[in-house]
Amino acid sequence: MNSSALHPFDTLTPEEIELGVQILKTAFPGVPLRFKRIDVLEPRKRDVIPYLEAERLGRPLPQKPARLLYSYFHRMDTRGFFKAVLNADTKRPVYITELPKNVQGPADVDELVEIEEACMKHPAVQAEIEKMKLPAGYTVCNDPWIYGTDSDNESRRLAQCYMYIIEVDHPQSNHYSLPCAFSPVFDQVTKELIRIDYLPTGSDSKTQPTQPWKPVKCIQYAHDLLDEPTRTDLKPYIVRQPEGPSFAVNGQEVSWQKWRFRVGFNNREGLVLYNLTFDGRQTFYRLSMSEMTVPYGDPRKPYHRKQAFDAGDVGFGITANQLALGCDCLGHIKYFDGYRTDSRGNPVLLKNVICMHEQDNGIQHKHTNYRNNAATVVRNRELVLQMVCTVSNYEYVLAWILDQAGHIEHEVRATGILSTMPIDNQDGLKVPWGTNVGPGVMAAYHQHLFSLRIDPSVDGHNNTLIYEDSVPMPVDEELNPYGMGYTVERTVLDVAGHADLSVEKNRTFKIINESVINPISLKPVAWKLQLAPSQMLIMGPGSFARKRAAFAEHAVWVTRYQDDELYAAGEFTNQSTHDTGLGVWGSRGDSTRNTDIVLWHTFGLTHNPRPEDFPVMPAERISVMLKPDGFFTKNPALDVPASSQSFNRSTLHQDTHKEAQRESCCVTKSML
Amino acid sequence: MNSSALHPFDTLTPEEIELGVQILKTAFPGVPLRFKRIDVLEPRKRDVIPYLEAERLGRPLPQKPARLLYSYFHRMDTRGFFKAVLNADTKRPVYITELPKNVQGPADVDELVEIEEACMKHPAVQAEIEKMKLPAGYTVCNDPWIYGTDSDNESRRLAQCYMYIIEVDHPQSNHYSLPCAFSPVFDQVTKELIRIDYLPTGSDSKTQPTQPWKPVKCIQYAHDLLDEPTRTDLKPYIVRQPEGPSFAVNGQEVSWQKWRFRVGFNNREGLVLYNLTFDGRQTFYRLSMSEMTVPYGDPRKPYHRKQAFDAGDVGFGITANQLALGCDCLGHIKYFDGYRTDSRGNPVLLKNVICMHEQDNGIQHKHTNYRNNAATVVRNRELVLQMVCTVSNYEYVLAWILDQAGHIEHEVRATGILSTMPIDNQDGLKVPWGTNVGPGVMAAYHQHLFSLRIDPSVDGHNNTLIYEDSVPMPVDEELNPYGMGYTVERTVLDVAGHADLSVEKNRTFKIINESVINPISLKPVAWKLQLAPSQMLIMGPGSFARKRAAFAEHAVWVTRYQDDELYAAGEFTNQSTHDTGLGVWGSRGDSTRNTDIVLWHTFGLTHNPRPEDFPVMPAERISVMLKPDGFFTKNPALDVPASSQSFNRSTLHQDTHKEAQRESCCVTKSML
Repeated sequence: MNSSALHPFDTLTPEEIELGVQILKTAFPGVPLRFKRIDVLEPRKRDVIPYLEAERLGRPLPQKPARLLYSYFHRMDTRGFFKAVLNADTKRPVYITELPKNVQGPADVDELVEIEEACMKHPAVQAEIEKMKLPAGYTVCNDPWIYGTDSDNESRRLAQCYMYIIEVDHPQSNHYSLPCAFSPVFDQVTKELIRIDYLPTGSDSKTQPTQPWKPVKCIQYAHDLLDEPTRTDLKPYIVRQPEGPSFAVNGQEVSWQKWRFRVGFNNREGLVLYNLTFDGRQTFYRLSMSEMTVPYGDPRKPYHRKQAFDAGDVGFGITANQLALGCDCLGHIKYFDGYRTDSRGNPVLLKNVICMHEQDNGIQHKHTNYRNNAATVVRNRELVLQMVCTVSNYEYVLAWILDQAGHIEHEVRATGILSTMPIDNQDGLKVPWGTNVGPGVMAAYHQHLFSLRIDPSVDGHNNTLIYEDSVPMPVDEELNPYGMGYTVERTVLDVAGHADLSVEKNRTFKIINESVINPISLKPVAWKLQLAPSQMLIMGPGSFARKRAAFAEHAVWVTRYQDDELYAAGEFTNQSTHDTGLGVWGSRGDSTRNTDIVLWHTFGLTHNPRPEDFPVMPAERISVMLKPDGFFTKNPALDVPASSQSFNRSTLHQDTHKEAQRESCCVTKSML
Repeated sequence: MNSSALHPFDTLTPEEIELGVQILKTAFPGVPLRFKRIDVLEPRKRDVIPYLEAERLGRPLPQKPARLLYSYFHRMDTRGFFKAVLNADTKRPVYITELPKNVQGPADVDELVEIEEACMKHPAVQAEIEKMKLPAGYTVCNDPWIYGTDSDNESRRLAQCYMYIIEVDHPQSNHYSLPCAFSPVFDQVTKELIRIDYLPTGSDSKTQPTQPWKPVKCIQYAHDLLDEPTRTDLKPYIVRQPEGPSFAVNGQEVSWQKWRFRVGFNNREGLVLYNLTFDGRQTFYRLSMSEMTVPYGDPRKPYHRKQAFDAGDVGFGITANQLALGCDCLGHIKYFDGYRTDSRGNPVLLKNVICMHEQDNGIQHKHTNYRNNAATVVRNRELVLQMVCTVSNYEYVLAWILDQAGHIEHEVRATGILSTMPIDNQDGLKVPWGTNVGPGVMAAYHQHLFSLRIDPSVDGHNNTLIYEDSVPMPVDEELNPYGMGYTVERTVLDVAGHADLSVEKNRTFKIINESVINPISLKPVAWKLQLAPSQMLIMGPGSFARKRAAFAEHAVWVTRYQDDELYAAGEFTNQSTHDTGLGVWGSRGDSTRNTDIVLWHTFGLTHNPRPEDFPVMPAERISVMLKPDGFFTKNPALDVPASSQSFNRSTLHQDTHKEAQRESCCVTKSML
């Protein structure tokens, strides 16, 4: 498809990947190139707004902004690392620039495979494996890990390979249950072994040479490999929408229950929502999961470098699972696809990486007039857009959920397998920074700190961020004689920067448009952030964890909008030594009052693992909401039809004779 | 049914109401009695435990504990207020005692109707209504409100009647949109008018005599009365369980997915869960919503007395809605009933007050081996037990949700109609303690503070409450050279009392059994409270709000178990002047280590209303979870069958030709 036929927010096409490769090969004739990424470059906001406004108001469409692509790639002759911006309309580069030696691009899929292979084949690694004297049938694999940072002077692109034992030849044998106590470090560009790190297995930092493995039981998760039988008492639960879904899809544009928006997808952030309007009014320009950092609390070498930035170091888009009907999603499902490049520049289809469906979420509103029992009940239908990202051992289920009352929820579920460490399987041995989750296997305490990027357009692009604290009013003989009064204290965040939580004061952050006054509340129209109160980064003030992730030190940030400022920890996080994102943009002194602002919310989990989180973790849910707060003049879901049996067709449970007379140690009988 | 056939946790029967009435009438021959409540008295724990253990272990059942009832009633001759405890087995009173003059029992349904009627008929009230000179067709009603407290010397039983205008003769005309500016106070026993309070309608405390009403538009919520048409684009969403539900019910005992428990119901707390076991192991003895207080932040008289205790002043049981199939509940629904007495001692059936059904809640766990894309996905089936309580204007949807991985969630949804105040409909008039939600109507800031009572039996009844803070480890050249380590600091709550939140430290409360060590984690078995971080009571330290609701000052309380200590603010909250609950029990100095303890969690909403919360409020959700944390040796949901299309039967969305070519202001076309 010709780029000119695309909407400015449309996802990368395979033809665009081919075009990008062709432009770059033309720019470097005869030079072998290794492609890390080709993707659409976010259009400049000032260029796209007139187009969106014409769409919204049904006016003739102006010219589209230029369709730009960007690429990260290596020259394999000089090993230089480059960034290019390309114009897909003119088919010419905008710029191509070599990046400084200490800048590392994100991991890519081919690289992971290559490093795993290089590691497994290396004689020194094979020699270590030999030393373990594994029983017949046991094999070894490795997860190449982001190297992390403990120095300002590392310019090699490195991988820390964590080694694991595979108990059984099965595609889901849980190697994370059987970690080895050595970890080779490879240069990812030269594929050279740098050294082998030995891992501490006691309660201190001491290490020893590789020993024969003392067999322990592998804790498996795959149904085929479980000791216990599968439960047989779970009955099917089927969702039917005989008249089809309530949404309409046109390309990447979705209309549902007064909402209209565009579904975006890119290699780094995965799912993005663009240009959300409700009943024709502007609400948010762009919503995305901007970054996440996962620092580990095991203080010992080499674990002190375990700090992943799952969006910046890898990418939620390239790790998004190909979702399967009836497995990942229940009900009537619409899927969206994406594309990435492989290292040779071939387009790779990312099939079904986003699913969209409706769900019922209980009661939305109800009132019963107690005098006559006349009741109004409206159920809460939601629209869910979801992706599931596998970052090595771990899974994130990231979902945007819209409802009929104008609420927008972002829900994160953390699942998958804990990143594990070996620990001697001795009586009573445990460590104060982790949990033993199986014999010989420990999972260190760690955090997941997300940065949700919220680019608002509350009745236009000139918005302001405020917060309100709920505080007691002073006792006053006339007005507040009994000390029962309370009110809110309002603070305007009129300069770029950050703010902290205060659960004690119910601190509430609101995006307001000071030029539009709600005729009922008589206050500026507003959206409220219902945040997820979370512990911020625990690691000490001088640590690289903090230097690299300034965003993870404060719950709320506000910046003045600038093109290309999309990622909370900066563009390049892999082996970064310092933050080039919010820490910089939040300190520029930009005015953020009545202008185009961006709100960033840091939230997450301090995850001190439970044994129950192993071998695969029951999803831990955390969620954030955006809610209109004086944006509408009344509940915008009043016109949702009343809940009724003719529409919902529920089934009444009848206590069966068999059940009532069933053998039981309990003598209770039906009461009535 | 004979009491002796009942399980100790079975709900009150109509025969027991009749028996209770008969015992009391025999005790007071010829005396007219007015019954406020007859209900089952919680059995003494030491008497019931041997019975439960015999049940759990399949041993011969010992003698049941005595079946006891309790009653609150008035002698109508002396107007004395009494409490009686009755033995249903022997059909004799255990004790009958007159309560002090300043103790007021809860409101009852008949009383509300009587006071509303007495108020409407009173000539002085009629005279005030006359003064409003309402247009033809408009009428007036009132909600008798709990009087609250502003003095230590009030021994009359009072009602504050808030008056409202009914715009149209329809059972759901929203009178809360049209509040009047006068409020009669009645003696609920004598039915005498005490005085008429006038309500301030400006931004200060000034009041004036009743004026002719200046007509404003009533904001209606009922579908019949809306200006706008009902949405037509919502398509049916039907849940089918062709093989029936996964639960089995035997009387009030429920078995579902390794859980077994008993569903209880009483007039005060409504839904209670008893004796929860998972895979045969004890977890919790009793789970209940113990109390809730709703103080209002409008400082002015008479609003300074607006502080309801919805469980203690009224009762979640007696206000529970009769749920309707397909309206309140979607899917395959089992209902449970309850009973209450009317004021004359007649049993009243509370039909379908609890609903139970399964729901699908997305992904429970997933892992994909990125090397081969082999994935294990298990969906999260949940069992929901729910009631909806209407306390005058407001609704609470209170639900216990169990899942297959041993999680227990308590979810509160606040919906219904805001308690409103009149405000002059003048340009620009607003107040700093409330939100204008319609013309001439203001909703004051207020809080909802719940106390969830958690009576644990983690592998037995001797448990201990601890909390753990996640804190950085000191930098140490050898062990923690880079300052990345973190660990937990543990505090044992070994004496009854309270503790506060610390989001900053991810403070985590755990119920542990120090006598049972988890063989994997090597730590005592534990359950974690995943709490809802909430602002505590805002009102000033000297205020009656605080004196009456000590529980609302701290997020977590622990007490040593005592029979009859069930309600966080004490047994009698109506017009109470001081707390007789946690404030007392938490100060007794009881040892709470390795003994029978009770954990209480205070959480809630600071609700500064939005215009969107009117005329009926989109449900505000808040939830708390109990999670095993080293109770099991691994994820207890591993044996749940894998999610599959043959089981789930989802439907793939096909983009229709019509949709793809649909007229749109947007030129985007399908990409692939």
